[in-house]
Amino acid sequence: MEKVKLYENERVDSLLAENLQIIQSADVFSFSLDAVLLADFVKPVNRPDRKAVDLCAGNGAVGLFISKKFAGQIDQIEIQPRLADMNQRSLELNGLTDRIKVYNRDLKNVFSFLEKDSYDVVTCNPPYFKTLPQSKKNPNRYLALARHEITVTLEDTVEATSGLLKTGGKAYYVHRPDRLIEILDTMQAHRLAPKRIKLVYPKQRRNANMVLIEAIKDGKSDGLKFLPPVITYTDQNEYTPTIKEILYGK
Amino acid sequence: MEKVKLYENERVDSLLAENLQIIQSADVFSFSLDAVLLADFVKPVNRPDRKAVDLCAGNGAVGLFISKKFAGQIDQIEIQPRLADMNQRSLELNGLTDRIKVYNRDLKNVFSFLEKDSYDVVTCNPPYFKTLPQSKKNPNRYLALARHEITVTLEDTVEATSGLLKTGGKAYYVHRPDRLIEILDTMQAHRLAPKRIKLVYPKQRRNANMVLIEAIKDGKSDGLKFLPPVITYTDQNEYTPTIKEILYGK
Repeated sequence: MEKVKLYENERVDSLLAENLQIIQSADVFSFSLDAVLLADFVKPVNRPDRKAVDLCAGNGAVGLFISKKFAGQIDQIEIQPRLADMNQRSLELNGLTDRIKVYNRDLKNVFSFLEKDSYDVVTCNPPYFKTLPQSKKNPNRYLALARHEITVTLEDTVEATSGLLKTGGKAYYVHRPDRLIEILDTMQAHRLAPKRIKLVYPKQRRNANMVLIEAIKDGKSDGLKFLPPVITYTDQNEYTPTIKEILYGK
Repeated sequence: MEKVKLYENERVDSLLAENLQIIQSADVFSFSLDAVLLADFVKPVNRPDRKAVDLCAGNGAVGLFISKKFAGQIDQIEIQPRLADMNQRSLELNGLTDRIKVYNRDLKNVFSFLEKDSYDVVTCNPPYFKTLPQSKKNPNRYLALARHEITVTLEDTVEATSGLLKTGGKAYYVHRPDRLIEILDTMQAHRLAPKRIKLVYPKQRRNANMVLIEAIKDGKSDGLKFLPPVITYTDQNEYTPTIKEILYGK
């Protein structure tokens, strides 16, 4: 921890299950369960010659989490300098700067700094909400950009994802179930065939509040699977065993 | 039971939860849990001036089941004479012939015998499988027609559904999750906006094997909800409490 500088209101959180540390700040951005579940949803890739890229990386949680099961190079793209900087320092903290690289760039110009058709895996935890009237937006600009489609839309991320992936490469998204139809339509319009969907429910008897989607570039359009549901909390408001295992390990 | 004639290999099953009786035959067709869950998924309608129609009615299970919570007239369409006849005799058995009417007709000509834009509710448990090479088909013709898209396709049923519904009317479908994208696309192409989806999983840690979909004619395209998941069996291979309650009542 002495190795990297922490700014005001920043803290270092430990990810027990993965033995990793991440710099967080409630003022700016903290990763949520969404990022943890997205990383958990990614299939392991042991070959070090494979490449992954995380779009809308925030403070880098998804890239950090998948570093234990993705053996190759991981690129991360984040438009906000403050978040990209937190991410970079977390990589230093974990000794991962040789294998994970942060690009503090705009996703919309992605092909000016990353190679097309070259990635095996793309992960993305994009802003969930369509841009709302100014009055409704989060007054915190950092959080507003992370949550609302201000700098990037769903279609922008899907277009970038498809362009970055090799044929047969895999895209992993986490989003809100109320936009699932739009997500499926947009993916299909950009050569991504949805293959596996996992719904996450806050409790056993509540509507789903999160959806994980795996799509394959130029994959066949049939054979969609809905994986076993994930329930986040028990009726006693504790994490379920499934979530505890993902967060804290077995 | 003395009231109606039973043919060879036919039996009368009781639906305990609803105090209804239905004529079944393993040789020809028996309703499955799919029909029970579809009927359970339908929202109650107390007004007797409302109209519902069940497409691909088989032996009439869905229409029978919803008769307890749908107060108005229910029409049922089934192309197979043998199944429509079983249905008709079940209606006699339950004293429901004044309120439920069986049409042994082809759905593709539906507007020659039912009025367009006149229904409040359409239910449909269509054939799940695309037509396969002749060699793969079920040698039992009754079951083949019920399971494979031989006489009717998904698009035929959705087109009929949309045409029969009033604006704001509700369509309820049960189908296989691997065809969900096609179902959502087809519904949207025919003015049906999917609104509520419920996934059914055979066990807690198994992929979904059934999906229930509610769509509204000319509804807004936003606000899709994924309702709490239904799990059919416990790890001990017994029906879960949710399923028991639907089948046998509280």
